[in-house]
Amino acid sequence: MKFMDNKPHRSTFLALLILLITSGNVVASEGSPLNDETSDPRNMGWMVGFPPEPSLRITQPDSNYFSFPKLRWSVCHLRELLPTARVRRNPYLAIPFEYALDGGIERVTFSPMNSNNDMTWQESLSANYTDGLLILHKGKVVYEYYSGCLSEHTLHAAMSMTKSFTGLIAQILVSNGELDETALVSSIIPELSPSAFGDATVRQVMNMTTALDYSENYADPNADIWIYSKAASPMPKAPDYDGPEGYFEYLQTVRKKGSHGDGFGYKTVNSDVLGWIIARTTGMAFEDAVHHYLWDHLGVENDAYITVDGLGTAFAGGGLSATLRDLGRLGQMMLDDGKVNGLQLVPEEAIDAIRRGGDKEVFAKGGFTTLAGGSYQSMWWIFHNDNGAYAARGVHGQTVYIDPTAEMVLVRLASFPVSANSKIDPTSLPAYQAVADYLMSKN
Amino acid sequence: MKFMDNKPHRSTFLALLILLITSGNVVASEGSPLNDETSDPRNMGWMVGFPPEPSLRITQPDSNYFSFPKLRWSVCHLRELLPTARVRRNPYLAIPFEYALDGGIERVTFSPMNSNNDMTWQESLSANYTDGLLILHKGKVVYEYYSGCLSEHTLHAAMSMTKSFTGLIAQILVSNGELDETALVSSIIPELSPSAFGDATVRQVMNMTTALDYSENYADPNADIWIYSKAASPMPKAPDYDGPEGYFEYLQTVRKKGSHGDGFGYKTVNSDVLGWIIARTTGMAFEDAVHHYLWDHLGVENDAYITVDGLGTAFAGGGLSATLRDLGRLGQMMLDDGKVNGLQLVPEEAIDAIRRGGDKEVFAKGGFTTLAGGSYQSMWWIFHNDNGAYAARGVHGQTVYIDPTAEMVLVRLASFPVSANSKIDPTSLPAYQAVADYLMSKN
Repeated sequence: MKFMDNKPHRSTFLALLILLITSGNVVASEGSPLNDETSDPRNMGWMVGFPPEPSLRITQPDSNYFSFPKLRWSVCHLRELLPTARVRRNPYLAIPFEYALDGGIERVTFSPMNSNNDMTWQESLSANYTDGLLILHKGKVVYEYYSGCLSEHTLHAAMSMTKSFTGLIAQILVSNGELDETALVSSIIPELSPSAFGDATVRQVMNMTTALDYSENYADPNADIWIYSKAASPMPKAPDYDGPEGYFEYLQTVRKKGSHGDGFGYKTVNSDVLGWIIARTTGMAFEDAVHHYLWDHLGVENDAYITVDGLGTAFAGGGLSATLRDLGRLGQMMLDDGKVNGLQLVPEEAIDAIRRGGDKEVFAKGGFTTLAGGSYQSMWWIFHNDNGAYAARGVHGQTVYIDPTAEMVLVRLASFPVSANSKIDPTSLPAYQAVADYLMSKN
Repeated sequence: MKFMDNKPHRSTFLALLILLITSGNVVASEGSPLNDETSDPRNMGWMVGFPPEPSLRITQPDSNYFSFPKLRWSVCHLRELLPTARVRRNPYLAIPFEYALDGGIERVTFSPMNSNNDMTWQESLSANYTDGLLILHKGKVVYEYYSGCLSEHTLHAAMSMTKSFTGLIAQILVSNGELDETALVSSIIPELSPSAFGDATVRQVMNMTTALDYSENYADPNADIWIYSKAASPMPKAPDYDGPEGYFEYLQTVRKKGSHGDGFGYKTVNSDVLGWIIARTTGMAFEDAVHHYLWDHLGVENDAYITVDGLGTAFAGGGLSATLRDLGRLGQMMLDDGKVNGLQLVPEEAIDAIRRGGDKEVFAKGGFTTLAGGSYQSMWWIFHNDNGAYAARGVHGQTVYIDPTAEMVLVRLASFPVSANSKIDPTSLPAYQAVADYLMSKN
């Protein structure tokens, strides 16, 4: 990663956080010699052997575990490097998928954005350093692919898709009448009164239209991003450290710049504030709220987990890991209007509110060119395309993509060398549309 | 803890390891003012709130998280403080227990060792700072109790009961013919040739009759125990650290003193060597071997997890956490000669080999006065009593106690202030026998 080459002495945890936060801001490093196959962690041999050779080790704190190509291993192994909290499933409620595998999907071709050359589905998997890809059509698995570090049993970093869990739970609370989206944040979390968030509404936090004086200028050692990542690291602090401890203390230091509601600004700290609001409102730690409102009901096969700060606070902005199939179960519940196996387990109104989307003009100020015409609502990305598609998205290529018209849920887990999804959208979003068209053509 | 008061600047991870290793060697601190109820973490308020008050925080690295009374919280939360590896269950194979609860157990009384005053069952639970207690009789739950940090869903530190998992898996490999118990360790792990373990047999490691020049003198800053715990810590090393990295490197430095086979010496490093032998023999990381040989088949309700060193190596000597019920499922499989729901999932010969026990004379040299007449076989404790009972045991009161004659499995998870089980056996082992007598009287 470019900024890592410039800053070899930054700790890897900082790098992890930065990568989570910089969607859209990082320029691709040019000319990486490693492609999908040669960077495959099974080919690299990372951490193979008892013990692994020193040159094959990926460890805390200074081996850059979240920089390419090591990240291709690390996305499946965060819990072995960091403290985590459990997101508990129901041990007696795994609901197996029905399968209707469709070999036709591998023959789908499409035109990448700004390109005249067709690309095959298979080429897109490699181009995007795909670790796993699941497609559900009408609730059945029509396509399932694993590569790199991933297997059907392996949890993978969801990165900023975590935010969509956070936003969905907040939306559930709003729909249930347990959380007032028009309330000021200070009325729920008085500690945030002096901060930028104090006079923002819950909805402005949910849609990231807060006006924050928040610098992500990595060249400035006093930039907020550095203070944030130091505060959030669960690794022991330096003896002379006197900055904020953990997410909650850090959030109180964020200052305002401008007027809330004017524009979309993609800043992870909003998700952390929303996680705090969820904890205060429900009386549950964030990971327990994910259990209670989602993971306990979805018929998932595996516990999920989430990284924590030094006080055990879950990283609501990006810390979740889960399996490909279980993320598919989340998407299928969304597609099914909040129902799981016919039972209404999430309020339909919460799903509707997300699907309707947010303000497109406000969103346009965020500068996401590959998502032009879209919006951001309750921490989900709404495409406002003909099919009404919307998605959870995380850096390095993570997505849960829901196409209601095609009755399709697509989950991709990936370890693309560059964090910014703007680099991977051109060979992804048209591919998803092409698969949707193919599936609809079968109806 | 006495040694912690003397060494306030030792890191907490060192303390954790020491407590794991010092069974039988630590003297009880006298006059602790906190009893079971007043030290209950729910009463102490540890980590309550978003965020918890500073005085209620339990964190890395210096808050002594594994000293009483904080350990009463920490035994249920190790993964939130340390990196861990997953011990995967089968998501579709949770086998619920049948229940036949028996209120008569609460009316059982017994005479503690060296005492003329009867104690009630309920008094023993409090006296022993019990977090959870499960009793199975003829395969059905007759008693189930949760307190402190524990619930039916909560994983609790198994401490040195981990060793019994390690020993059982090695015994399975021996029974399967995949591991030769008469082989020298050096023939399996050449790196250990120069160490004390090189010319020990696998069986000597399995039964801890290796002759080790291994000091646990905490007053000596150069004692092996300090070097071991520094090597094993997953927390970042000091910049000037040049000692061994991880369990595997450390084990190569242990030197011999005396002749292997002469006497039982309870040293955790034997279990770490055995974990290494298992990894080399099976080609699986230790946590995957636990999955493959045990956790995948037992019908458990929850994944387990295990702490790791800085290279991701699982702590085969003490790092496991699991739920009360799932440990009960392990015990029931042992009681049922390796069968689960009538299917032979562990070789009966492996269970038989453990039950038969080891050499009593060799064991007597280990100095475990509360276990006089017993033996240690494949990292299980054999009582050689009339009922043929045997157990997994871990510091601070952990046990899986199997009484074949009474057809009883008893699991206790606890957070007794002192690590040494010799302080807790007098009010425990007679209680187990009394319950066994009660259950047999119903037949």
